[in-house]
Amino acid sequence: MERFDGRRPDELRKWSLVPNFLSHPVGSTLISCGGTRVVCAVSSEGRVPPWMKSQGKSGGWITCEYGMLPASTGDRMKREAASGKQGGRTVEIQRLIGRSLRMCADLEKLGENTLYIDCDVIDADGGTRCGGISGAAAALAIACKKLYPEVDPFKQLVAAVSVGIVDGVPVLDLCYEEDSRAEVDMNVVMAESGEFIEIQGTAEHGTFSRSRMNELLDLAEHGLKQIFALQRECIEAGLK
Amino acid sequence: MERFDGRRPDELRKWSLVPNFLSHPVGSTLISCGGTRVVCAVSSEGRVPPWMKSQGKSGGWITCEYGMLPASTGDRMKREAASGKQGGRTVEIQRLIGRSLRMCADLEKLGENTLYIDCDVIDADGGTRCGGISGAAAALAIACKKLYPEVDPFKQLVAAVSVGIVDGVPVLDLCYEEDSRAEVDMNVVMAESGEFIEIQGTAEHGTFSRSRMNELLDLAEHGLKQIFALQRECIEAGLK
Amino acid sequence: MERFDGRRPDELRKWSLVPNFLSHPVGSTLISCGGTRVVCAVSSEGRVPPWMKSQGKSGGWITCEYGMLPASTGDRMKREAASGKQGGRTVEIQRLIGRSLRMCADLEKLGENTLYIDCDVIDADGGTRCGGISGAAAALAIACKKLYPEVDPFKQLVAAVSVGIVDGVPVLDLCYEEDSRAEVDMNVVMAESGEFIEIQGTAEHGTFSRSRMNELLDLAEHGLKQIFALQRECIEAGLK
Amino acid sequence: MERFDGRRPDELRKWSLVPNFLSHPVGSTLISCGGTRVVCAVSSEGRVPPWMKSQGKSGGWITCEYGMLPASTGDRMKREAASGKQGGRTVEIQRLIGRSLRMCADLEKLGENTLYIDCDVIDADGGTRCGGISGAAAALAIACKKLYPEVDPFKQLVAAVSVGIVDGVPVLDLCYEEDSRAEVDMNVVMAESGEFIEIQGTAEHGTFSRSRMNELLDLAEHGLKQIFALQRECIEAGLK
Amino acid sequence: MERFDGRRPDELRKWSLVPNFLSHPVGSTLISCGGTRVVCAVSSEGRVPPWMKSQGKSGGWITCEYGMLPASTGDRMKREAASGKQGGRTVEIQRLIGRSLRMCADLEKLGENTLYIDCDVIDADGGTRCGGISGAAAALAIACKKLYPEVDPFKQLVAAVSVGIVDGVPVLDLCYEEDSRAEVDMNVVMAESGEFIEIQGTAEHGTFSRSRMNELLDLAEHGLKQIFALQRECIEAGLK
Amino acid sequence: MERFDGRRPDELRKWSLVPNFLSHPVGSTLISCGGTRVVCAVSSEGRVPPWMKSQGKSGGWITCEYGMLPASTGDRMKREAASGKQGGRTVEIQRLIGRSLRMCADLEKLGENTLYIDCDVIDADGGTRCGGISGAAAALAIACKKLYPEVDPFKQLVAAVSVGIVDGVPVLDLCYEEDSRAEVDMNVVMAESGEFIEIQGTAEHGTFSRSRMNELLDLAEHGLKQIFALQRECIEAGLK
Repeated sequence: MERFDGRRPDELRKWSLVPNFLSHPVGSTLISCGGTRVVCAVSSEGRVPPWMKSQGKSGGWITCEYGMLPASTGDRMKREAASGKQGGRTVEIQRLIGRSLRMCADLEKLGENTLYIDCDVIDADGGTRCGGISGAAAALAIACKKLYPEVDPFKQLVAAVSVGIVDGVPVLDLCYEEDSRAEVDMNVVMAESGEFIEIQGTAEHGTFSRSRMNELLDLAEHGLKQIFALQRECIEAGLK
Repeated sequence: MERFDGRRPDELRKWSLVPNFLSHPVGSTLISCGGTRVVCAVSSEGRVPPWMKSQGKSGGWITCEYGMLPASTGDRMKREAASGKQGGRTVEIQRLIGRSLRMCADLEKLGENTLYIDCDVIDADGGTRCGGISGAAAALAIACKKLYPEVDPFKQLVAAVSVGIVDGVPVLDLCYEEDSRAEVDMNVVMAESGEFIEIQGTAEHGTFSRSRMNELLDLAEHGLKQIFALQRECIEAGLK
Repeated sequence: MERFDGRRPDELRKWSLVPNFLSHPVGSTLISCGGTRVVCAVSSEGRVPPWMKSQGKSGGWITCEYGMLPASTGDRMKREAASGKQGGRTVEIQRLIGRSLRMCADLEKLGENTLYIDCDVIDADGGTRCGGISGAAAALAIACKKLYPEVDPFKQLVAAVSVGIVDGVPVLDLCYEEDSRAEVDMNVVMAESGEFIEIQGTAEHGTFSRSRMNELLDLAEHGLKQIFALQRECIEAGLK
Repeated sequence: MERFDGRRPDELRKWSLVPNFLSHPVGSTLISCGGTRVVCAVSSEGRVPPWMKSQGKSGGWITCEYGMLPASTGDRMKREAASGKQGGRTVEIQRLIGRSLRMCADLEKLGENTLYIDCDVIDADGGTRCGGISGAAAALAIACKKLYPEVDPFKQLVAAVSVGIVDGVPVLDLCYEEDSRAEVDMNVVMAESGEFIEIQGTAEHGTFSRSRMNELLDLAEHGLKQIFALQRECIEAGLK
Repeated sequence: MERFDGRRPDELRKWSLVPNFLSHPVGSTLISCGGTRVVCAVSSEGRVPPWMKSQGKSGGWITCEYGMLPASTGDRMKREAASGKQGGRTVEIQRLIGRSLRMCADLEKLGENTLYIDCDVIDADGGTRCGGISGAAAALAIACKKLYPEVDPFKQLVAAVSVGIVDGVPVLDLCYEEDSRAEVDMNVVMAESGEFIEIQGTAEHGTFSRSRMNELLDLAEHGLKQIFALQRECIEAGLK
Repeated sequence: MERFDGRRPDELRKWSLVPNFLSHPVGSTLISCGGTRVVCAVSSEGRVPPWMKSQGKSGGWITCEYGMLPASTGDRMKREAASGKQGGRTVEIQRLIGRSLRMCADLEKLGENTLYIDCDVIDADGGTRCGGISGAAAALAIACKKLYPEVDPFKQLVAAVSVGIVDGVPVLDLCYEEDSRAEVDMNVVMAESGEFIEIQGTAEHGTFSRSRMNELLDLAEHGLKQIFALQRECIEAGLK
């Protein structure tokens, strides 16, 4: 099988991670995954959401907001700020990223602070939510080291990659063209330990068997090892 | 291990399905899963979303809207119509139900019609999204038989159940109390064929291994077989 | 004259009231008035609207929210939560129900609490606002007895019924078909004492004289006596 | 009994009607009822609401929008345009005015046009909705004569006045001070023929008997005769 | 050159200012500038915006809200309260008026109060923002004298006028017809001292040179002297 | 005088312009002005706003949307898409950019197309609106050359720069620190011909004389000449 962009089924696109891409936030990265680019930023605010207090929860909170520049896609998207609401896809993605990132950190050690993760897509070519998780985790690691020099609340890295079945073949790290005609689309969020944090597998056409699912998870693990290595490099460079 | 409500780990709560619960819609059910009750309705409208035309797609469409009565939960929830927007959880759930139901039907055979699935929770005790999928699939089967007596677009049943890890033990069909302290929470959407349509597994605390995941999928399959049987009975009764 | 559904002009449809229909709220009913069914719930929250404080009012508050399931009507209605605002009819109805229910209770005796009345129509066939008032009053009586075992703030029952002029004839308790071609439509809200709480009479076509109005009020009184009896039974059963 | 402003129980405040108060709309008035002033305007637009077409209704439509200048009340009100939605009271009032005005006109004769009635309160001292109806009816009469010189769709005048029970005494045309402590508040909308178009009576504290209601309707008729005379003068002056 | 309404290029339209036009607010005017009429009101509220506290600013605040009655224009405008948001033009204008008015007052001397300026256009014929500034400044002067009899926070008058280039000729105080075909449109906000507070010059077609700009500023100064005189008269009359 | 960052009063910050910064839109740039960075994109859509048709205008349209990444500022800003509306400052800026850019092009030659200008600030340090105009003009020049190889609708370059009075001294190209304590703040939008397109001068504290204004315009002209040179280089590079 020949993939759309000539890759082998188990081959990642070219990924890179630039640390400290923005001036103001305490941690930030620019992540590129093939044609996809996402600006990831971590900002700290000295208070927690009101529901934490009313539920008697101590410690801090981590939450994510996700957006796409209108010109990040082939046909210009409507600007969500102008249309007055975030679409369902946006809401779904930012909730996934937020949940995944909270697994990186010991919320108790954050103190009464909220860490805002902003993932803004400037070029979109498939895999923006996985890029967002992977880029934001690196930014969060940098931010935690800076904000908490004594007791680092950062527990372990988390990264994500998409896998899917395209024309009957399981493949790793789908680009937009592949994504839009995949039979099955799966996003795998994993901790550096090799255990799962979140798995979302969706049949876009038809159904998928348990053995197919296992093949996809193997591919994901293969790709994620490489992404963890890139994150570690980026964090080290960003803290120099 | 003793479960909160005395069940064995692999035991479903009491499920039941009442067909034709509402007067007006072409298909409807009231599904009960333990203390959870969801009114599911299917209505047909003779047009399709504008994006289908602009993307050159023929056939029909199936979409879902989900809501909870404010008094369906222990503490009264804010009414989403009054607060002026649907929350993130609502959006996420109705997208999941819509995707799952579309797998039940051959959209091409629907003609230029949209089938609206409305899932309204009147009592909530965990598992409302899985109840919604399972109840709506039965309502959709009834509706399709009535609307399309010649060429039934209904392909195969779909049902969903939650599984999770509570106090270290994999369990089936979590009630609210279990759900709120689960380490891992997974919703499994399956076709009657036994293959998957959607899997969403989330670590709420910590991470989970691939072997744990396999145990959870086994439990889900076990429960889903029983739910498919209930659906078949309900559909038969509803078409008499 | 033959009515649409064969009733005499002064005949109610079949009404019934199920107490404690929901699991969570302190008081709830399912009221059926012919083909109309409304779920009524009363929930208590330990605070009052901010304007009460700023206006120096002591005691508690009672407020109502009204909604219709999208599939409760012949043609599916748009979900108000999805369209982002409550329509004018909804606002008008929930204000009427709230005002009427506040007359049931001695707000001073509620303490610093708000009682939320939720009326959600699951099947609509005319008279939903009157059904809502009548069902919610029974739910409120149950709730008050439970919440305030010592000094019951519940003062007296309130019920409502619609009357109108259809094809020139004054009739009681209009179904949807009658309502949509009535010349005059009137909703009468009455206390158990026989005095009025609210009267809203509207000419839909033409105008109406004072003597016509008196005939309509006679019909309403006749129907309301029967509804008060049903409420009393329901409350008694609900408190067992 | 001495009323707040020294009037007899059956005495109107000082009412006046200035025709053609605005430059642009085809019909307009400034109505003063004691300390209340409302600018009423009628504008024509060459199309009808989409629902008329989809329901197969021919002819035109009349609709009303109501607003209050923020500084029209004792304590400044929030501007509804700034808070992003119209409040419940606004919605209720504009629906009442719209319904009442539609009774003035033969919609069939309007052709495929919508007449917008705008009622904007610049000074508020009770009775703004009744002032709005009365002022808008005069503006509508002027507009219809100008827009339809051949077949006047204007059928008959409509006017409205408030009545109520204050300190146990039925009184006509309540000012703000009376309105805010009234036991019963009733708005009576009447056609020039002396028959009713809409009656809305509300017990603000306690309940009211049928005989009390009859006393209130007598007062209203007494006041409305004087208002019809003012309207006729205003229309005549406005058409010169 | 003959102007649309026969004026000389350096001639103002007929301006007038009525003090105390409304009953409730502490300061108010009705300003007329040719066919444009704006109701200006100043209301005081005993608190300041939250951002002032969080930025550690002492003293008070002045802010403006601007609106147009739907029937104030030739073709009826949509009511912003009904469409659920203020348009861009409205936002731009109310920010300009608010900034200009703040220059009138010593915010420190206001105490912890917000003065709300409401400018509501009842007839529009060009120059509504300049009319609003000029009318509101007079209302503010009256309000400050009444609210602060001891230490007047009112520093100096501010007024505004439009100038522009129409058919190649610089003209003063454009009416709507001129405004809509002007090549350059400039709003000049000036303090009584003769210095500028805000200048906004916009090329609507083509560009403009520095010498053209100087001619426009000369015209504006000429008109503003007359407007300051009218303001002084109005304030004096309003305080009697 | 020593400026905050050591520049002379008439010295620009370091400006640079990267062409074709994004993958999808037909024209794009990344503009840096000192610490400010703005992504500018131009996208074409084959239709025009509805009001153009209803006003009988032929040709095309150019409009702008402006946004800031939440982490672009020192304290994280609220995401406008999440809060459900664009703030007043955003609206004001995007209207200014849109107006300025329309002066670059002969709208008649665009055909029935809308060009969307998106300016998204990724790092903010003062002067974002001027950076947006200058960067977007270069992107628009590139886009027009590509979209209209035959009859270029691009007429002439436009650029903008801020000037102001800080501590009594007129200075060019204010950074955030200077901007926040400036007495006068002025944005000058100029065509390559040296004539003005828009001038917005605002006294933030006190007032300013005409001679001060002339000094500011001299500074602006001096800076704009350099910016036009950078734009020409960027366009040339972007079209290679």
